[in-house]
Amino acid sequence: MSYLKGKSMSDLREDNSAKIIEIVLKSGPLSRSEISNISGLTKASVSTITRQLIDEGLLEETGFQEGNKSVGRKRKNIDIVSEAKYVIGVEIGVKTIKSGIIDLKGNLLNELKISLNTKSEKTIINKTIDVIKKISANFKKNEILGVGIGATGIIDNNKGVVIKSPNLNWNNVNLKKEIEKQISLPILIDNNVRLMALGENRFCYNWGEIPRMLFIHAGYGIGCGIILNGELYYGYKFGAGELGHTIVIPDGPTCTCGKNGCLEAFSSGHAIISNYEEVKADSKNYLFEINNIILEDENGINYANEIMSKAGKYMGVSISNLLNLLAPDLVVLHGELFDSESYYSNVEKYLKSNFFGVNDKILTKRSKLNEKAAVIGAGALIIDRILLKK
Amino acid sequence: MSYLKGKSMSDLREDNSAKIIEIVLKSGPLSRSEISNISGLTKASVSTITRQLIDEGLLEETGFQEGNKSVGRKRKNIDIVSEAKYVIGVEIGVKTIKSGIIDLKGNLLNELKISLNTKSEKTIINKTIDVIKKISANFKKNEILGVGIGATGIIDNNKGVVIKSPNLNWNNVNLKKEIEKQISLPILIDNNVRLMALGENRFCYNWGEIPRMLFIHAGYGIGCGIILNGELYYGYKFGAGELGHTIVIPDGPTCTCGKNGCLEAFSSGHAIISNYEEVKADSKNYLFEINNIILEDENGINYANEIMSKAGKYMGVSISNLLNLLAPDLVVLHGELFDSESYYSNVEKYLKSNFFGVNDKILTKRSKLNEKAAVIGAGALIIDRILLKK
Repeated sequence: MSYLKGKSMSDLREDNSAKIIEIVLKSGPLSRSEISNISGLTKASVSTITRQLIDEGLLEETGFQEGNKSVGRKRKNIDIVSEAKYVIGVEIGVKTIKSGIIDLKGNLLNELKISLNTKSEKTIINKTIDVIKKISANFKKNEILGVGIGATGIIDNNKGVVIKSPNLNWNNVNLKKEIEKQISLPILIDNNVRLMALGENRFCYNWGEIPRMLFIHAGYGIGCGIILNGELYYGYKFGAGELGHTIVIPDGPTCTCGKNGCLEAFSSGHAIISNYEEVKADSKNYLFEINNIILEDENGINYANEIMSKAGKYMGVSISNLLNLLAPDLVVLHGELFDSESYYSNVEKYLKSNFFGVNDKILTKRSKLNEKAAVIGAGALIIDRILLKK
Repeated sequence: MSYLKGKSMSDLREDNSAKIIEIVLKSGPLSRSEISNISGLTKASVSTITRQLIDEGLLEETGFQEGNKSVGRKRKNIDIVSEAKYVIGVEIGVKTIKSGIIDLKGNLLNELKISLNTKSEKTIINKTIDVIKKISANFKKNEILGVGIGATGIIDNNKGVVIKSPNLNWNNVNLKKEIEKQISLPILIDNNVRLMALGENRFCYNWGEIPRMLFIHAGYGIGCGIILNGELYYGYKFGAGELGHTIVIPDGPTCTCGKNGCLEAFSSGHAIISNYEEVKADSKNYLFEINNIILEDENGINYANEIMSKAGKYMGVSISNLLNLLAPDLVVLHGELFDSESYYSNVEKYLKSNFFGVNDKILTKRSKLNEKAAVIGAGALIIDRILLKK
């Protein structure tokens, strides 16, 4: 019931300070007068708050505005100091742990990636702690706002618990608690595809200028991060976004989840590899990997084209359903499958032909953060929650 | 960018006053001390604000709390005065205009329903104005907070314009402006199914204790009202909720919208009647109405059972897709189709068998407001926007 909370004067001061930081992150550099216009706060309040934030080193004056012909004092611009604070982003995958330090404008520094050849909770947690210690070794503790960690599966992001991760074979792992034992920084855990969505939304579109954005990851599995009203949407028990397990053909082929006709049984890397294994059942030494299949598809091999086209068709139908249900401003596509012309052209085709309504745009874009989306998004989570108090 | 607005002291006072009204609407009667606990506001602030609201006649003291054994003064309860203000709700349908006066607790008074046998904008607007004047004749203007109006179709609820209503055959009708010419009260316009969702959420579940609720209307057509984070969700250009035009069988039969395989081509009253017309092509004088078909279904007539069961199956699949995507707390089902055992049992069956994830509940309930949902919901819109400043 937090939305029912009233606000005290001190809440108000903190909220207004966070709002000003957000406005400058989004649209800076800006003059105090522009910040006052956007926020609706008086110029006096803006001056007081920006002075304090400049003293803290978070904001800085970056010279005078150009083209300012008004009589009187020229307006000074104010901007975020990118390196005032840093955040740590980590993605725990099935085969790798990726990590990096991210500054306040999303620049990725000190990347570190290590391989995993185990699903052991203990080993992976220890390796994660090692990685965090290594990449942050040259930073002072007060320079770092916190550590964001993304993992596959259904994750309780309030408690920082991996409830169920079929890919990692984890159940009810309290990742936050385990990491906090060794790292004395704020730790936040979330689903990796949700973090990809957040990172793309915050750092590639002026800190959230796209309020309704769907982020679709199609790799070995299919996931969907949903941003509505500018915020990540989680649903009851963090269950939202299971696009891969929506039904695209009722009574269709069995999915790995045990149900029939899920999108993931048609349009995921897993399904594509399965279909390929049937076609190439007799071929020895063939490496069944998505990139190999995309390559054969590009080389015009018929069965590769067919398999990829069919997979793309059902992805397009599913995205059209999302458009008709949620009417987002933007759909961001992530993962190597969308690089395949056979796949992607059918996504576009079926998305368009099944779209309903009076909207005049259907906007899909490729991810700009690509394979770094989850790590950068984990950093965005820390900025959102800790610096901007969202 | 309204979420970027800072807040002044006077915004704060208004917000805190609206929060207290909402808390009492939701959980009243409550003591000042309980209001202070829920809101986080000091007891002094709560006392000042409640005193003012009592003076305005919106709140009242309703006696002492029972079972209060603490030493010192007994705590007085505070509650909403249901009849402190009224709102007017109107639904413009294809065949009728329904209307009513609603008090602050959702009680419907002075109902008035008139028939329509035209789609003429001018006639319908004039009849709507007449209806509003008639039902409010015995009320003083300052007793009425405003008029909420629901209509079918895609509606710009900011401007109060019916952008496109295939059922009414209207395009770009500025309903708000036309009504305001004759009625000097605040007027808000919205889609009728969205208002049904809002009315159910506000008046049947303690003013929004279900933050994520989907409301599915299955009548002649299919519509869906979406409440997320406690608020109606509209999407880009008010396009969200087109559940009827999500694809349930790719390349399936043609829908009235021109696409193939939409849910509405399988599971709507329209589709059921079409299927029935094929089966009973030679029967004269048969009245092809949903209620007749449901009756034959109840009487065990095979082809009625088959048609209704198939329709229910695809509705169940579609609802399971909604659950997997949005993980709502509750799905409310509205419309006579859900009264059919053949239809409803398949909704339940396919919803359950296609549900994925770790959630331990799949909660569907029948609408409690039934055919009055849109009129009452139109009233809820006025309370939300005008009294609670949402």
